[in-house]
Amino acid sequence: MPAPTSFNNYIDTHADAFIKRLGDAVAIQSISSDALRRQDVIVMGNWLNGQLNELGVETKLVDLGTHEMQGQTLQLPPAIIGRLGSDPAKKTVLIYGHYDVQPALKTDGWKTDPFTLVVDEDSGRLIGRGSTDDKGPILGWLNVLEAHKNLGIAMPVNVRFCFEGMEENGSEGLDECIQEEVKKGKDGWFDGVDCVCISDNYWLNTRTPALTYGLRGIAYFSINITGPGQDLHSGLFGRTVHEPMTDLIKLMSKLVDHNGDILIPGIDDMVPPHDEEELKLYQKMDYTIDDIEEAAGGKVALSSEKTTVLMGRMRQPSLSLHGIEGAFSAVGAKTVIPAKVGGKFSIRLVPPQTPEKIIPFVNAYLEAEFAKFNSKNKMEIEYLHGGKPWVADVKHWNFEAAKKAIEAVYKKTPDYTREGGSIPVTLTFAESLGVNVLLLPMGRADDGAHSTNEKLDRSNFIEGTKVLGTYLYEVGAAA
Amino acid sequence: MPAPTSFNNYIDTHADAFIKRLGDAVAIQSISSDALRRQDVIVMGNWLNGQLNELGVETKLVDLGTHEMQGQTLQLPPAIIGRLGSDPAKKTVLIYGHYDVQPALKTDGWKTDPFTLVVDEDSGRLIGRGSTDDKGPILGWLNVLEAHKNLGIAMPVNVRFCFEGMEENGSEGLDECIQEEVKKGKDGWFDGVDCVCISDNYWLNTRTPALTYGLRGIAYFSINITGPGQDLHSGLFGRTVHEPMTDLIKLMSKLVDHNGDILIPGIDDMVPPHDEEELKLYQKMDYTIDDIEEAAGGKVALSSEKTTVLMGRMRQPSLSLHGIEGAFSAVGAKTVIPAKVGGKFSIRLVPPQTPEKIIPFVNAYLEAEFAKFNSKNKMEIEYLHGGKPWVADVKHWNFEAAKKAIEAVYKKTPDYTREGGSIPVTLTFAESLGVNVLLLPMGRADDGAHSTNEKLDRSNFIEGTKVLGTYLYEVGAAA
Repeated sequence: MPAPTSFNNYIDTHADAFIKRLGDAVAIQSISSDALRRQDVIVMGNWLNGQLNELGVETKLVDLGTHEMQGQTLQLPPAIIGRLGSDPAKKTVLIYGHYDVQPALKTDGWKTDPFTLVVDEDSGRLIGRGSTDDKGPILGWLNVLEAHKNLGIAMPVNVRFCFEGMEENGSEGLDECIQEEVKKGKDGWFDGVDCVCISDNYWLNTRTPALTYGLRGIAYFSINITGPGQDLHSGLFGRTVHEPMTDLIKLMSKLVDHNGDILIPGIDDMVPPHDEEELKLYQKMDYTIDDIEEAAGGKVALSSEKTTVLMGRMRQPSLSLHGIEGAFSAVGAKTVIPAKVGGKFSIRLVPPQTPEKIIPFVNAYLEAEFAKFNSKNKMEIEYLHGGKPWVADVKHWNFEAAKKAIEAVYKKTPDYTREGGSIPVTLTFAESLGVNVLLLPMGRADDGAHSTNEKLDRSNFIEGTKVLGTYLYEVGAAA
Repeated sequence: MPAPTSFNNYIDTHADAFIKRLGDAVAIQSISSDALRRQDVIVMGNWLNGQLNELGVETKLVDLGTHEMQGQTLQLPPAIIGRLGSDPAKKTVLIYGHYDVQPALKTDGWKTDPFTLVVDEDSGRLIGRGSTDDKGPILGWLNVLEAHKNLGIAMPVNVRFCFEGMEENGSEGLDECIQEEVKKGKDGWFDGVDCVCISDNYWLNTRTPALTYGLRGIAYFSINITGPGQDLHSGLFGRTVHEPMTDLIKLMSKLVDHNGDILIPGIDDMVPPHDEEELKLYQKMDYTIDDIEEAAGGKVALSSEKTTVLMGRMRQPSLSLHGIEGAFSAVGAKTVIPAKVGGKFSIRLVPPQTPEKIIPFVNAYLEAEFAKFNSKNKMEIEYLHGGKPWVADVKHWNFEAAKKAIEAVYKKTPDYTREGGSIPVTLTFAESLGVNVLLLPMGRADDGAHSTNEKLDRSNFIEGTKVLGTYLYEVGAAA
């Protein structure tokens, strides 16, 4: 059952207003991993809450308490729990998104101010931090609500919302909040939820919409090395002391190989090899090496074999070295021996891996390697945050409804993908509600989430809004 | 011939005013390696020039032209060339110092604002960026000039000054300027110079004044790795592309070993081993492992053998890893794959090494190692700046005069040391003037030059000023 024509028309005729609203959201610097920006995250939550209320959604802001970050005790941004409709004759869909974003500085290499949404008329791109991850998708739902309210037509399903402000920093406190709403029975706002739709992540390429049935987990670490009491002059102290950077760089060099193999014993081996049937699934995907290299902006694919690269992203763990805190990172030529350095790296996880299962391997390996150095420096392995991986049943009516919606709007059959990213809350919904969870991506593979010059294509924002609305009608019509 | 009692009295009775003047100098953020601070370096030069003029020194500001830095064309801060006295019956001493400083941010770990001189009454420390490197020492000369002017006594020697503002960033343009003043014959301000006194660097320990007769050179490099067109999301791209950080960290890990050995073939071998006589020299020095570990602020000495650590600093090259430009360096947990990273490292050089001699070894080794990676990323080795090492004759009357001055003020015989730091201009003076060059340190080994919480002890500033003055009298009396 497709959405009413009036709905699709409303979306088309109000596109510019929707883009303006996206600009308002992007302008709020809701960076959850920066203590100095925490207040902006809370401001963003209040803005979103106001929008929902105006559109007739009953909400509550759940206080998730405080946490320790960067040496401070910080208030966690609130979870926004919302509901609209409680018709027992209708299905109930729970919608998730996040209103926080990754850090972004013009000096990182942005061509425009990251927090001013730029509409590039030639390319049709909407450029700004959070445009695709994840403010565009959550505003897509505001668009759907607005159309129904102003057209005076009832929503085809009961809707529940769960919007958080800590997704980019470990979703602290959210699991407990969801458990609460679930376990409260009739008083819980998530009582009677039939399925979950997660509005985050991306198509596999730039052509074909995707439905995502798997996500990688993550475990994020910092290797902290200390020794001297303060930074030292490399002329005065070079070749007289154990330099923390020497130890750290050597340790970081032992984590991952150039071909992507993880060098920590026991991590790669934990994942069972693929069978023939699974291989076919990857061979079928609308995907080429050119796609990944276009998205990456360089000819740097690890293999010329499409299935190898796809499996590396979807069904294998990966280890990335992110950077070093405490070392010289500015332009120029500072002759310093840093006294305290923290090497940041993370491991993306796939079933049956979990942070709990891999942490002991990481610790044992790094401690054994560091012991070989006979260094007088001290090493500490800090586990910063993590989440489990997840895989869902693609034959469920929830996925069928999304498939029909995509076919109706885009006239294409979606790719069924497993994503490389991590959205830990997916697993919480699946486990606590016991219902099918679907990831319905709005953006494309080349949007540059977490990166410089992040964008969302105008057509993905507008057609994507139609998909969200149509999906609700298909769910409402599902057996 | 000691300095007049009136001189030493003047220094004692005006100590507080001298410290206040040092505070004025520290407040000017003359960071030569930061384009945004270049104007402050020029302001500092003008301030110093004004002080010299007030004290009767004739000066000229030499325009050293412009240079490319951080993508901009920048005016180089001027060299301040000064002269006072031209009595043919007196010896002529050329004095060198620098008025630029290393970068410093409160967030680097400073307990106080780096650019506000803090006088710690308990410890007697004068804390602030540049206090010991090199604003304290150059202001020591202003103190000497002021005393003679206000006491109405003539200087015992003719004095020439050479103060630069780019020492912490490669002394760009200075060599040419010095060559000019030398080669001009009678018109050159450095004509007739009998000896050079360089006011920079530090005692070997915290107890015994030192005279320095050797310096290490330096060659500073950046290994630049590029691949993707922009920063990437480690979830979306982890295990699909060649990550620049993986290549860079592996390359940096192959440069130096934990015991300080340089792993680039041909570098360590270039230096001849010590003989028995040289060994004795090191055994005699007033120096212990505790001294170095106290200065370093941690029990991190590379050896428990004093002579090993001393030779590592004075007669061996060293390689330090300073940091990475372009990687994630902030607090927090950013899941980014950096697209362009530059690994900064430098090698301290000793005779017969020179930048020109070692660069080919560095390039050949890094290119060979990178080739082994079979990475699709690109590597470029950038040579940022460098300088040759230097060794002088300690039996010259210039060193004798300084020795007597130290014995008169401190009642101690100085250590004769070779320093680990790099002051390329030393070599320029020695080679272009063909006279003896002396390094007369004011600060102590634990001052923390280039580091956080840099300090100069009050007694080193005041007694050190007396040494500078007395040294001129001893030079004047020398045969």
